[in-house]
Amino acid sequence: MDSKRLTPPALESLQRVRVILCATSHPGNIGAAARAMKTMGLTRLVLVNPKIFPDPQAEAMASGADDVLVNATVCASLTEALQGVVLALAMTARRRELATVPLGARDAALELAGMAAQGEVALVFGNETSGLSNEELAQCGCWAMIPSNPDFSSLNLAAAVQVMCYELRMALLGTQPVPMISDAGQLATHEEVEGVLSHFEQSAVDSGFLDVASPGRLMLRLRRLFARARLEREEVNILRGFLASFQRRRG
Amino acid sequence: MDSKRLTPPALESLQRVRVILCATSHPGNIGAAARAMKTMGLTRLVLVNPKIFPDPQAEAMASGADDVLVNATVCASLTEALQGVVLALAMTARRRELATVPLGARDAALELAGMAAQGEVALVFGNETSGLSNEELAQCGCWAMIPSNPDFSSLNLAAAVQVMCYELRMALLGTQPVPMISDAGQLATHEEVEGVLSHFEQSAVDSGFLDVASPGRLMLRLRRLFARARLEREEVNILRGFLASFQRRRG
Repeated sequence: MDSKRLTPPALESLQRVRVILCATSHPGNIGAAARAMKTMGLTRLVLVNPKIFPDPQAEAMASGADDVLVNATVCASLTEALQGVVLALAMTARRRELATVPLGARDAALELAGMAAQGEVALVFGNETSGLSNEELAQCGCWAMIPSNPDFSSLNLAAAVQVMCYELRMALLGTQPVPMISDAGQLATHEEVEGVLSHFEQSAVDSGFLDVASPGRLMLRLRRLFARARLEREEVNILRGFLASFQRRRG
Repeated sequence: MDSKRLTPPALESLQRVRVILCATSHPGNIGAAARAMKTMGLTRLVLVNPKIFPDPQAEAMASGADDVLVNATVCASLTEALQGVVLALAMTARRRELATVPLGARDAALELAGMAAQGEVALVFGNETSGLSNEELAQCGCWAMIPSNPDFSSLNLAAAVQVMCYELRMALLGTQPVPMISDAGQLATHEEVEGVLSHFEQSAVDSGFLDVASPGRLMLRLRRLFARARLEREEVNILRGFLASFQRRRG
């Protein structure tokens, strides 16, 4: 969102994040993952033993993130892909024997964002069907799961990449002040809101809708409605224009 | 994540959420969106004028979420798809003229989760290339954007569905069930809000305030105001009473 931009240090942190895809079966998923990464500002894709790559299907699914594919590194092992990282976060869709409880995606992203300020980090995804092997999982210092429907927990690979990259961007955004929104309409002042309420009241009395002798809660309801809406100045002008036109017609 | 389960009220709220896809071009995206929904526990898919549906590509990409596809509703207009909702949240990838500043995805999900405790809500996505039309956007009370790379902000449709459904699940996991606020009025439905807008429009034409030949942004502004206010049924009745009294006086 253009009102929320990353600070230069946050942008540098993003450049320290590798997305590692292990033993991916479908080249289309590699392309879709590249696109998902780029939408969140990540660029460093590492492929460990992809079944088919490069491939036109990957390019088709990348849909504008071709640069991420072109610059992707292909490795023969996860060990090679992880060289130099200070934190490797493995994504897993199910519990394993011997597992510590995995982090939720949001907490994991915060952890990753914190570590990326200090050095290279990796986000590691397994094969579409079988996930990461136990040996691969064991090489990663941190495991994470995306909270999901217990009866249908299998996210598409690129969808999981999208959620994690999104959470990482949110984690990096969260540490900085949000700038003032410049193009919101100017809010009406208290007096302007009172003015339109009086105008409504007078029009309603004139039209016979409001009986001055027993007004009931009518104006109170309108006041509450306008307060809740946080009326803008231009809206006050529109409403008063409406009312004036009704009165002129009657006059 | 199996250590984090939704409470029964949160599960009920999820069942009040429609995911509406407007004018989707690629059936594969419909299937992928169905899968994304189901991984987060959502089941109610509504398609407005899909280019191709049903289609084997949709089934292939649904990959186990065939039930969501089979139960999908096909509608001829967004108006039809929105019948009975108390909140429609439109996803937009870019700013438009006249736009209030859209919510971020996370805040929007919190809003949606809160409203789903009280009634039917909708999450509305546009065409892959062109997004939602201005008319479609205008029908939605709330707009949201997924924070993204300003230089490459276009998420794949199903990826955007995945992020929003994930955020919705997180919102429902994170909040204690929201009790019904006892003195809050009953929210107006989409049709009731449309009714009062038509009434305003007709009155404004009758009074000469609105020139049918060059309506400008008047009705759009009113629509935004009422959407933002989350009109209650009683307020709709009050406003219509006002308008009727003006018309009677003239008649």
